[in-house]
Amino acid sequence: MYRSHTCGELNASHIGNEVTLSGWVQKVRNKGFMIWVDLRDRYGLTQLIFDEERSSKELMEQAGSLAREFVIQVKGEVIERVSKNPNIPTGEIEVLVKEFEILNSSKTPPFTIEDETDGGEDLRMKYRYLDIRRNPVKNKLMFRHQVGMKVRNYLSNEGFIEVETPYLIKSTPEGARDFVVPSRMNEGQFYALPQSPQTFKQLLMVGGMDKYFQIVKCFRDEDLRADRQPEFTQIDCEMAFVDQEDILNIFEGLTRHLLKEIKGVEVAEFPRMTYADAMKKYGNDKPDIRFGMEFAELDEHAKNKGFNVFDQQELVVGIAVPGAASFTRKEIDKLIAWVKRPQVGATGLVWAKYNEDGSLKSSVDKFYAEEDLKIWADATGAKPGDLILVMAGEADKTRTQLSALRMHLGNELGLRKADEFAPLWVVDFPLLEWDEDTQRYHAMHHPFTSPKKEDFALLETEPGKVRANAYDLVLNGNEIGGGSIRIHDKETQSQMFKYLGFTPEEAKEQFGFLMDAFQYGAPPHGGIAFGFDRLVAILGGQESIRDFIAFPKNNSGRDVMIDAPAKLDEEQLNELHLRLKL
Amino acid sequence: MYRSHTCGELNASHIGNEVTLSGWVQKVRNKGFMIWVDLRDRYGLTQLIFDEERSSKELMEQAGSLAREFVIQVKGEVIERVSKNPNIPTGEIEVLVKEFEILNSSKTPPFTIEDETDGGEDLRMKYRYLDIRRNPVKNKLMFRHQVGMKVRNYLSNEGFIEVETPYLIKSTPEGARDFVVPSRMNEGQFYALPQSPQTFKQLLMVGGMDKYFQIVKCFRDEDLRADRQPEFTQIDCEMAFVDQEDILNIFEGLTRHLLKEIKGVEVAEFPRMTYADAMKKYGNDKPDIRFGMEFAELDEHAKNKGFNVFDQQELVVGIAVPGAASFTRKEIDKLIAWVKRPQVGATGLVWAKYNEDGSLKSSVDKFYAEEDLKIWADATGAKPGDLILVMAGEADKTRTQLSALRMHLGNELGLRKADEFAPLWVVDFPLLEWDEDTQRYHAMHHPFTSPKKEDFALLETEPGKVRANAYDLVLNGNEIGGGSIRIHDKETQSQMFKYLGFTPEEAKEQFGFLMDAFQYGAPPHGGIAFGFDRLVAILGGQESIRDFIAFPKNNSGRDVMIDAPAKLDEEQLNELHLRLKL
Repeated sequence: MYRSHTCGELNASHIGNEVTLSGWVQKVRNKGFMIWVDLRDRYGLTQLIFDEERSSKELMEQAGSLAREFVIQVKGEVIERVSKNPNIPTGEIEVLVKEFEILNSSKTPPFTIEDETDGGEDLRMKYRYLDIRRNPVKNKLMFRHQVGMKVRNYLSNEGFIEVETPYLIKSTPEGARDFVVPSRMNEGQFYALPQSPQTFKQLLMVGGMDKYFQIVKCFRDEDLRADRQPEFTQIDCEMAFVDQEDILNIFEGLTRHLLKEIKGVEVAEFPRMTYADAMKKYGNDKPDIRFGMEFAELDEHAKNKGFNVFDQQELVVGIAVPGAASFTRKEIDKLIAWVKRPQVGATGLVWAKYNEDGSLKSSVDKFYAEEDLKIWADATGAKPGDLILVMAGEADKTRTQLSALRMHLGNELGLRKADEFAPLWVVDFPLLEWDEDTQRYHAMHHPFTSPKKEDFALLETEPGKVRANAYDLVLNGNEIGGGSIRIHDKETQSQMFKYLGFTPEEAKEQFGFLMDAFQYGAPPHGGIAFGFDRLVAILGGQESIRDFIAFPKNNSGRDVMIDAPAKLDEEQLNELHLRLKL
Repeated sequence: MYRSHTCGELNASHIGNEVTLSGWVQKVRNKGFMIWVDLRDRYGLTQLIFDEERSSKELMEQAGSLAREFVIQVKGEVIERVSKNPNIPTGEIEVLVKEFEILNSSKTPPFTIEDETDGGEDLRMKYRYLDIRRNPVKNKLMFRHQVGMKVRNYLSNEGFIEVETPYLIKSTPEGARDFVVPSRMNEGQFYALPQSPQTFKQLLMVGGMDKYFQIVKCFRDEDLRADRQPEFTQIDCEMAFVDQEDILNIFEGLTRHLLKEIKGVEVAEFPRMTYADAMKKYGNDKPDIRFGMEFAELDEHAKNKGFNVFDQQELVVGIAVPGAASFTRKEIDKLIAWVKRPQVGATGLVWAKYNEDGSLKSSVDKFYAEEDLKIWADATGAKPGDLILVMAGEADKTRTQLSALRMHLGNELGLRKADEFAPLWVVDFPLLEWDEDTQRYHAMHHPFTSPKKEDFALLETEPGKVRANAYDLVLNGNEIGGGSIRIHDKETQSQMFKYLGFTPEEAKEQFGFLMDAFQYGAPPHGGIAFGFDRLVAILGGQESIRDFIAFPKNNSGRDVMIDAPAKLDEEQLNELHLRLKL
C-alpha cells in the first residue's frame, strides 16, 4: 500500500496518527538542522518535516538529497504545525517523517511546476505531462470531467439514451474536408472519420429511439485557425416527435442546469432573437448580450447633411459607448487605428462625445449641428457621458466591422465579465447561403435542415430568403450549440438536394440510405449539437478551448509531445500502397 | 406539441382524460364496424379504437387506410378497455380516437417489426433502423446505455477523472495493425487511430492525474473473426501509487457493483487463480468456473499399462462429466466425432463410465482393470453416474483440445447458465511469449507491463519463465478485462524494449516521449481495460456483442447499411495523391 491518506486530506483531527503518504516533492527548504518538504499529489499539498532532534542522521542526509519532482513515499506522525498556513486545508499540520523511500527521481523540470510557471506555451505542450501537474491545468481537466458527468446525468434522467455511432463511416463531399482512412479488407476503398454523427442520429430517430444523445469525438480536416482542433468533442442530441419549441425548452433546461450546478448562477428565461435582428442589432449571429451598445442605423439622420463621406454609403450605423465621452483624443485615435487594421478593414470612424454637461461635440462638427448629434444620441441610446461611434459603408461589411469594434470595446471596458452569463437563442436562420466560388446555394446549417413551412413557396423564387427551422444557442458571444428540425420525408429531402445542386444520382449515391429510411415511417424529428470544448471553456471562464484538452494539437495539427503525424515505416507504407492499388 | 403522453404511459388512472399520442402503427385489426390500432413508440404500446357508433364516417375511412409502420398522431379520450390485456402496462385502457393525422406513411417493411421477426441477419443489418424499432434490439441499446452510465458514475464517485485522449496519434509497429489517416497539413505524414490509449493514460499518471478512466473507441485493422469489430469500445482505467492488490480490489468493486445493480446478483469475493493453474486445471486462461470438470493429469495412472497409445504421449489428461455415465454409445461417438473435427483437431477420446452401481467400464477395458479406472475416477473427482473422458498428446495442444470439449459439454449439459455469474481473477501471466514466425519474444500483454521483481533475474536466462504483474478479469469464460502494473522507470523500460528486439533507435523513435516522461518523476502506476462491448453482452446474458451495437460492421468490416468503406470521388482521390506525394 503506497499511502494511507492523500496529500490533501490531513488536518488537526489526524494529529498523533501514523500515516503513509506518496507524492511529488514540490519544494525543499533546508535549514541544516531542519528540512521541510512540500509533498504534492492531485489532492493537495502536505508539509513534511525532518529535524536533527527527532530524525536520524541518515534520514536527514537522505532528505537533503531530495530535489523538485522526486517521487517519494513517507511514513510518519501527524503533528501540529508551529506556523500554520490558513490558506490550505492541510495548513494546521505537518508530518514528522520516520521513514522514507525515493520511488523515482526526477531530472530538473524544464519549467516550474507551480500555478504561475515560467514555461512558454510550446515548452509546456512538449512536456504536457508536466504541465498537467500544475493546478491550473489539472483543475481544468477535472472541470471538464465534471461538466461531462453533469451533462450525461441530466440527459439520461430526461430519458435520453446514449448510443455510440460508428467512427469508420462513408465520406461525403458536402461540408468540410473529411479525414479518410484506407481500408485493408476492402482494397481501394476508404472510410471517413465523422464530422458529426448527423445521419446516424437521424436513423436512430427513424429507428424509434426517441431521445438520443452522445458525447462524441468528431473530425474536420481543415486548416486550423487559432484554437480550433482537427478532432473536437460534441454533445450530440436528437429527438423525435418534437417541434422547435420542444427542443429549445429541453436544451434551455440543460444549459440552465449546468449554469446552476457548475456556476451557481440562476438565469431567467433565455431571450430569443431572429437571425435578422441579431445581424441588424449586433452585426453578428452570436451577439454577446452581456452588454448593450446596440447598433442604431443613422442613414436618415446622417446622410445628405453635406458630409459626402456618408452620402454614398449603403449604411451609416453607430453605437453608444457608455462612459467613454472622457476618452482622450489619443484614445480615440487608437480606436480608429484599431478598426483600420487589415483584420477589421474599416476606412475610419466618426465620433461624437455626449458630454456630461449635455453638450455634444463630434469629429464632424463642420457638417452636423449639435441638434443633429442629439438625434444620433437618441437613436443610439447615448446618455451624457457616452461616446457615439459611427461607421459607414457596404451594409454587411460595415456591420461586421462595427461588431468587431463593439466586442473590442466590450473587452477593453471590462463589460464581458467572466462571472456573468447571458444565454440567447438565435432563431430563424436562413436555409441557404449563396456561395460566390461555386456560384450556387449551400445549406447554411446542413442539407437535412427543414425550411419553414410558410417560406416553402419562396424556394423556387427567392431561395436566399427562405428561413430554416434552425437555431443556435449563444452564450456570452459564443455559439455553443446549434441545431434544426430536420426534413423527414423523402420528397422534401430529394428536392432539397436538387436545390443544393446535387444530381439525383449524386444524392442517391451519398445519402440514398437516409432517403430510403425516410420511406419506412420516419417520425418528425430534430436536434442540436453543442460544442463541448467551447461549452467547457466558457463555463470555465476562459476563451481558450485548448487549455481544457489534455493533449491538444497545435495550429499545424501536430501533437508536439508525441510528434504526430509521422512518416510510416517502409513495411506500413508498402502495405498502404497495396491497399490503394498503387 | 406532438404528444401529451407516450404510448407506454396511460393506465386506468387516466380514464376520461383527453390525450394526444404519436407513434407507429404496429397492427391494424379492421372488423368493419370497429377498427383497433396498436400504436407503438419507444415506451410501449397503446390500443386505439375507432368505432362506427362513436367515430365519424370520415375518421373510420381514414383509419381504414392505415398500414404497418405509418407514423400517426391521434387525439382522443382514454376509455376503459372491454377485454383487458394484463401483459402490458397500458392493457386496462384504450384511446377512443377523435382526430388523427398521418405524419408519415411507410412502405411495407422488409421484415416484421416484432419481437420474433422473419428477417434474416443480413436483411436486418441493411435496414438496421427498422431492426432497432424491435424491442429486443432497442432494449439492448438501452441496456448498453445503462451499463455505461453505471460505470461512469461508479468510477467518478471513486475519484476517477474521465480524460479524453487523442484519436489522431502516432502509428506504432508493435501490436495489431493500425488504421492510418493521411494528414493534409503535414504532407506525406500519417496519423494512426489508437488501438488503446495506453501511452496517454500512462502520461496522465506521470502528470499526476492519479485516477483516470475513459469509455473510449479503439481501432484495430485486423481480419475480423466472427463477432469482432474493427472499432470497439473500451473502459480504460489507470491509477498511480497502486500495486496489483489495489487494482484488483477497486475493479472487483466496480464489477460487483455492476452485477448487483444490473443483475441483482451478489457475488462473493472473486477467486484468484494463477495463469499456470488455469492452464493446468482448465487448459484455458479464461476458464468458465460456473461448472467443474477440472482437468486431472493421469500420466502416472495411465501410462505403461500396455495401452501404447498413451505411453508415448507428453500428457494424458481427463475430466469427469457429471451425470454422463448414462450417455449412449451413439452420444459418445458424437463427442468423439466432435473432438476430431478440424476446429478441435484431437485424434480421439478414451472414455470410462462410472456407473451408478459403482462399477466402472471403459473403452480401454483391455488395458485397464476396474481398479485402474477407480484411480482415474478419484483423480478426476468422478462420482457414480459420471463419465470420464481422457485425451492424450502434446501437452499444450491437448489441454486446449480438452478445454474445447469441456466448454462444449458445459453448453450441451446446460451448465453455463445465463443467470449465473462466476467472476475470476487470473494472475501471474507470463511476461513474454515466444513467437515462432519472428523467432523472438513478444510481450504477452504489451511492452509497458512490469515483470515480477522476484523473476527479474530470469530475464537474461529464461525469459519465457518470467511472470508479469499482469491480470485478467474473467467472467463466465470470457475475458472482460485485463491489465498490469506498468514499468515506471526509464532504465527498465529501455531494457524491456531491448528484450523485445527493439534497437535503442527504434525504441527512442517509437516511445521516446514516454521514456522521456519517465525521467521527470513518474509514479508507480498500473491499470486495467475492460472490453465494454463484451462486458455489456455478458451482463445482457448474450454471447454476441454485435447485437448491442447500434450500427455494427459485418465480418468484412463493412457497414452494409451506409455501404462503407467506399471509393473516394476523383477530387478527393487527387488530393490524397497530392498528400501522399505520389
